[in-house]
This record gives sequence, structure tokens and C-alpha cells, in this order.
Amino acid sequence: MTTFSKQTYESRRAVLRQRVGEGLIVIFGNNEVPYNYPANTYNFCQDSSFVYYFAQKRDGLVGVIDCESGDEWLIGNDIDIDDIVWMGETPSVADMAAEIGVARTAPMARLAELVNEARAKGRTVHFLPPYRHDIQIQIMDLLGIHPSKQKEAASLKLIHAVIDQRACKTAEEVAELEKAAKVGYEMHTTAMHKIREGVSELEVAAEVNRVACAHGYISFPTIFSMHGEILHGIPRDNKLEAGRLVICDSGCEIGSHYTSDNTRTMPVSGKFTQRQKDIYNTVLAAHGHALTIARPGVKWIDVHLAACRVLTERLKELGLMCGDVDEAVAAGAHALFMPHGLGHMMGLDVHDMEALGQIYVGYDDEVRPSTQFGTAFLRCGRRLQEGFVMSDEPGIYFIPQLIDEWRAKGLHKEFINYDKVETYKDFGGIRLEDDILITADGCRLIGERQIPITVEDVEAEMAR
Amino acid sequence: MTTFSKQTYESRRAVLRQRVGEGLIVIFGNNEVPYNYPANTYNFCQDSSFVYYFAQKRDGLVGVIDCESGDEWLIGNDIDIDDIVWMGETPSVADMAAEIGVARTAPMARLAELVNEARAKGRTVHFLPPYRHDIQIQIMDLLGIHPSKQKEAASLKLIHAVIDQRACKTAEEVAELEKAAKVGYEMHTTAMHKIREGVSELEVAAEVNRVACAHGYISFPTIFSMHGEILHGIPRDNKLEAGRLVICDSGCEIGSHYTSDNTRTMPVSGKFTQRQKDIYNTVLAAHGHALTIARPGVKWIDVHLAACRVLTERLKELGLMCGDVDEAVAAGAHALFMPHGLGHMMGLDVHDMEALGQIYVGYDDEVRPSTQFGTAFLRCGRRLQEGFVMSDEPGIYFIPQLIDEWRAKGLHKEFINYDKVETYKDFGGIRLEDDILITADGCRLIGERQIPITVEDVEAEMAR
Repeated sequence: MTTFSKQTYESRRAVLRQRVGEGLIVIFGNNEVPYNYPANTYNFCQDSSFVYYFAQKRDGLVGVIDCESGDEWLIGNDIDIDDIVWMGETPSVADMAAEIGVARTAPMARLAELVNEARAKGRTVHFLPPYRHDIQIQIMDLLGIHPSKQKEAASLKLIHAVIDQRACKTAEEVAELEKAAKVGYEMHTTAMHKIREGVSELEVAAEVNRVACAHGYISFPTIFSMHGEILHGIPRDNKLEAGRLVICDSGCEIGSHYTSDNTRTMPVSGKFTQRQKDIYNTVLAAHGHALTIARPGVKWIDVHLAACRVLTERLKELGLMCGDVDEAVAAGAHALFMPHGLGHMMGLDVHDMEALGQIYVGYDDEVRPSTQFGTAFLRCGRRLQEGFVMSDEPGIYFIPQLIDEWRAKGLHKEFINYDKVETYKDFGGIRLEDDILITADGCRLIGERQIPITVEDVEAEMAR
Repeated sequence: MTTFSKQTYESRRAVLRQRVGEGLIVIFGNNEVPYNYPANTYNFCQDSSFVYYFAQKRDGLVGVIDCESGDEWLIGNDIDIDDIVWMGETPSVADMAAEIGVARTAPMARLAELVNEARAKGRTVHFLPPYRHDIQIQIMDLLGIHPSKQKEAASLKLIHAVIDQRACKTAEEVAELEKAAKVGYEMHTTAMHKIREGVSELEVAAEVNRVACAHGYISFPTIFSMHGEILHGIPRDNKLEAGRLVICDSGCEIGSHYTSDNTRTMPVSGKFTQRQKDIYNTVLAAHGHALTIARPGVKWIDVHLAACRVLTERLKELGLMCGDVDEAVAAGAHALFMPHGLGHMMGLDVHDMEALGQIYVGYDDEVRPSTQFGTAFLRCGRRLQEGFVMSDEPGIYFIPQLIDEWRAKGLHKEFINYDKVETYKDFGGIRLEDDILITADGCRLIGERQIPITVEDVEAEMAR
């Protein structure tokens, strides 16, 4: 069963065909990925652009659109009795094609013929940048392009057309994101209930993942760590210690493939210390400020910089930074504390469309990526449009190695009070993240209920 | 920290070097695998042969052994400050090499030089059959062999040497398997406690996976389904229904990489019906019979056939089969009910060393694989040795499509009472699986406590 109606997929492909205009569009579905031997595979994940245009979530499928004739194919091999014995029955390729309004089907061997026919006539074969190595081998065999050259050989016309369609979420897509957010709420409140001294990071993370997997899968490997200063710190067999903070950055991918992505930071003991509250509320202020300025027409990089100014302002009040706030942020001094961007697009992928190239997804002719440490990691800078879904995720981290490196190099010493910063080297890190929908005249949080986020609400939820 | 002592790894490599005798051995470690874009990766899984000889579980490593000079290298690039900010600190390649007694380290760029130097001197470059597509591309670039030709180009000498070492588990390896079994016990008893009418397959499977992930990871995608007749039925969003059976085939991979693999079949209502008990006890009898005959020197295919004879005997008593038992099994008639093998090797992989080629792992010059439907899926047939660890997993399934196909073809009608079989088409399937260690004079179960397996014990555990 597909998530949306046949008409939705037909109309998406019609728009794509029109925008690309010429040639043969080939959208590769994903295949199973071997874990430790060919038959032992990871959880299957369909390619999200394939999901967007061709819906079906079986492995071994390729979608083809002829821009001139309008012909469409769903290409794949039907399964046999051995597959049925081991894996159960699945619909035929013909049934899957009919469900999404694709008129033609063919076995996989036909793909090379279609591609060769098009190339023989001098027509373009459009493909997206492949991130799976098996697809890279398939493209090499089809088109004679070595895997290392395929990213640059991918079709810019197709990339831009896909991004234009997928970037603005329709109401029915937002409804799916709301469902994912509901699971995300349960994941994070479960963490709040399970965190206590002596339980291991792995155990709590396993509980968080359980919630996601009961509704689908995790949208990315759960970050759950007392080492919040490691931006993507995976859970380890460390027992939670009273007095420490623990960061949980996690999300789900529900059956329709839409995702959630939230972060909360919690005190292991259930109560924040004053020092923790000071930094926490600084991050919370930046998180909230972004919500007041994000709207259509505003550049996301300006929202990012505005949030960084709020952080800097507060870090000055706490004696960790000094000097002029605007100058400090312009110089990138705040990136000692927040060495990443404010947020990224969200949708069918948790970093939406990142496989297509962040430079195309998040930037354009008007807004180019920054090369400055910190803001260089901002995955989107361009002007917001109604229907964009963004993560709003400021953070403050005390990373001993980075502090040592910057101090040794004397970086930004006019803006950073290194002596004071040294006393925070045992602090860890705090990040707070929610997903926001850009509306006609502003923005709103995705999710019926916001996961507890104020100091008081987090403490109250943990006490439940 | 490595699982075993430096001496263990040194000695394993010394034996390997001696057995291969000449040329350069290259053992590729695994890399991260993209889920839906390059930076969003699946749970990292190191290659198990790499774990066996080089222990370290970071991505981006290759181990090299020069058989003639005895020189050994751990090849890999050290991480930089950006990696530390995002992923935290990891030991240097030099530290990792020292820990396992490897004298030389080099950055990844050196690998091609080492390989080219060896080839220039006409020496063999030994590699194992690659199952990951990124490694296939790496081998193609190193050796000019297309991915589709690499399986046959892999070194048979190396494959056999690795299998000879890994097949017989040492006491310290068995101790790790015992730890994995303990987690397996908890996974299955958790399933028994969580199964109840109205809960979804996905929810219970998520609980089972939670237990594994709190101690490491799942050793394979958990099979949890009311459709026991699908051999590898993955959990779906189906509500459990009273009166149905549900199968749980799952295991864990603990931190040391050793695995468990067990199967239990349970009644959703907590109580088996008489019809379910009859089939259940048939499978249980075959499971138990295997334990009485498996010992060093006995062929595993004979244990498989003996278990099949027990099944056939009992199925005759139930009126589902007829005719001479020995003839029925020789003809393969039982495979309508058990279309798979009795079991496979277990160890660092849940199907141990399957990536090296089942034909080499499970068969030899004396015992060749069967081509008969059912027994053809037996992953190991050769004579057992002390230290082998095998799964003992008979099953009985009523697969409507297979029943229809066999009946239409008139297959084995002298041994199968099709009219009676038709009345079981709604039954599902039952499989019971434990892992056994071949000892000096017999075998024993792995695991301090056996997961409840008799009808009475399963019902009692479910009532807890």
C-alpha cells in the first residue's frame, strides 16, 4: 500500500518530466545491504527520491521516465517460489506499477537496453548522485563511468528539479511528519523516564530505539551520551553518573518514510545545577529566537547568525565571551562553543535530500556556503519558502581538544575568556532541537505537543 | 580494548601466515555503509575475519601480512580535529597496531604501493571474497578485477586457511559465545513476557531488539511473525491474534562480536492447542534427537537426515505423511514440511564465515552439497570436529504456495497425505533452535540455562 494516492505520484512524475524536459530519467531504488555476509542484511531503506516518485519499498527496483514520449517504466524482477518460502509473498512488479500509475514494467535486464537505446540516439541519461556502492557499480556497468566520477557526472538538471519539488512539503506530507513527531515525542519522554544513575547509555538508547522500531525505524543512529561535547556521540557501555548531563538526539522514520529529529539534554540526577541551567537557558533562548524570525523570504543563514548572536550575548553575561557581539559572531568566535549550523532541511530524509548534494539543497546563486569554521557546517543558507521544514538545533559544547587548539593558536582571544572556559572543560555539551514548518507568514513547530524543553518541564517529566 | 590478549592475535596471524605460505595476505576491514545519504550510516559492523586476526573495530582499516618476510601492517588514516569534534577521540592507528602486536602502520595510500610492489615481483595477493560493494570497488581499483569476477578471483588458499582456524572455537571463544547466549536468553524470555493479543509484531520485535542493543546489536534482523510458515518472516504492523502461533528467531552480537541464534515458537494466547502441541512436540523431538547423535567424526548431513527421519516418523503418526520413513526422507518428501537444513556453523558470524563461501565452510572433498530441495539449503554437511558450534533448528511449516505447487505437480504423493495437509494450511510454522558445541565425545548446548522449550515450560514462562 502506498502512502499517497496514485494521482499524487503521477502528478509528481509529470512535473519532474516537464522540468527536466529532455532525455531519459533513471531513478534507482535501493537494494539490500550486506551486514557481514550477503544474505545477512541491514534493515532495508528505500531511496527517498524513489519513494517520492515511485512509492514502492521493495529492493531491486528502478524507475524510468522518458521525458519526450512520457513513457514510464517500473523495472524489476518478480520473485519465485524459493523467495516465497523464505521471505513470503510480495506483489508483482506489474501490480506495484499499476498502484502508482506507471504503465510499463520490465525485468531488470531491460534497463541496459533502454539506456543503450537512448544513448545511441544521443539522448541524455539523467541520474542522481549515487551514495550506495552497489548502485555505483550498476551505473559503472550501464554507463562506463567509474564510481569516483559519478558525483560530477550526475544530472544537475535532475538534481535541481527533484530539490524544487521535494523542498516544499504539501499538507499531506506535513501530516506524515506530524505522525513521525508523535513517535519522536514518545522516544524523548521515554528517555526522560529511563535516565537514572547507574543505567548504561546503551540501555537507555536501546529503549529510545525500541520506541522508534515499534513504529518503523530510527531515522539516524541515536546519539545518546554523557559526552554531549561530542556532536555525534554514540551510546557506549558507560553507566550514567549523577551530576552529569546526557544528550539525546534521535528520531524515527515511520512506515511512510517521513522522519522526526529532536534533541534534548537532561541531568542524570533529574535536577539541573545552576551552572547547567545557565548554559541550558542560553541554548534555549537561541532555540526560541529562531522561531521568532524564521519566515518565507528570510535567509536561513541569517536565522543561524541571529541565533549565534543570542548565544554570544548570553555567553558574555556568563563571562565566557567578551567584546562586541556582532563582531564576535562575524569573526566566528562563537564557533568554539557552537561549531555547527543551526539546522537542516527535514522530510523523507532526516537531512533532507543530503544525498543530492548539500550545495544544491541548501544554497543557490544568491546565498553561497560559508568557509568559516562552524558556519561552514550550516547545511542550508538560502531564503526560506512556505513548506520548508527545518531543524532548529543550537548548542553549546565545551570540547577540550578544540579549546586547547584554539587557545594554543591564540584564536579570537579578544572575544573568548579562555581562563573561564578552562573551568568548563568537564561540562560536556547541550543541544536542543525541534523541527519547524515554514508557514505563509512565519513558522510553527512540527508536533502536536512539544517535547518538554524548559528546565521546569524537563525536570517534571523526569520525575514522572 | 581488544577481546583477547595480544598473544592470541599474534598467534592466529602466525598460523595463518604459515598455512598460506607465500605472497601477501590482505584482509579488508569494513567501512561505514550509507543508509540514505553518505553521512547517515548503518550500525557499524567490522568484518569478522578482520576481527579474528586484527581485532580493531574502527572503519577504514586494512590488515596486511607478508607471508615470506613475516612483516605485518595495520593500514589506516588517523582522524583529525573535525572528526574529534563530531565523533570523539579514537586511538591512533599506531596505538591500535601496538595493542595487537602488529609492528608496522601506514596511511591508506600506502596499500596500493604494497600491493603493486608484490605484484611487480610476481607474488600472489591473497584476498577473501568481498561481500561489501565498497570493498569490491577498492579491490577493482587495486587489482583491476571487476566486482563480478572477484568471488572467483579470491584466494582459495586463504579461504581454507581462515576456515580451518575459525571453525574450531577455543575455550576463550566459547566463553564469549556463552555471554552472547545469556543475552539471547533474555531476548527470548522478554518475547514470552511481551506476547499478548492485540500487541503488534513490530512492538514485540522492538522489545526483543532492545535487549540485544542494550548489550551490543542484533546478530541478524529479528524474525518475529505469526506467519511462521515464512522462514524469514520479518515483523509487521500486525496485531497478535489469540489462537495463532508466533515465531521468534533472533540473536545478539555482543561487543566482542560473538553471536547467539535461537528460535522459539509460542502461542499468542499463552496456551498451545492440542493440534499445535502435536506439531510442536514433533519439532522438539527432532531438536532433541540431534543432540543425542552429534559428536566429532559424525557427518552433520547425517544428523540433519536423522532429524528429518524423526519428523517424518511423527508426521506419519499424525496422518500427514505415509509410506516408508527412510524412503520418504531419501526421496526428500519431508522437505514439504521442512524445506531447509538442520543448522549452520555459529561464531563471530551468526552463519559463521558464510561470506567465505558456504561450499568451503560446510563441505569438503568427502561430503558434497545435496541438490535436493530442502537439503540443498543445509549450510554444512561435513564431519563434525571438537570445537565446532552448530545451530540445531528443525522446523515444520505449512506453506500454502508450496503445498499447492507440490500437489499440482503430484510430487511425492506416495509419502504425503495431501488431503490432510490441506487442513493445516492455516497453521503457520514452528521452528525450535539452540546452539550446540561439539565436545570431545558428544555435544552440549551453549548457554548456562536453556531458554524454556517444552510446552509446559514455555506456557509457564509466558504466564510470568
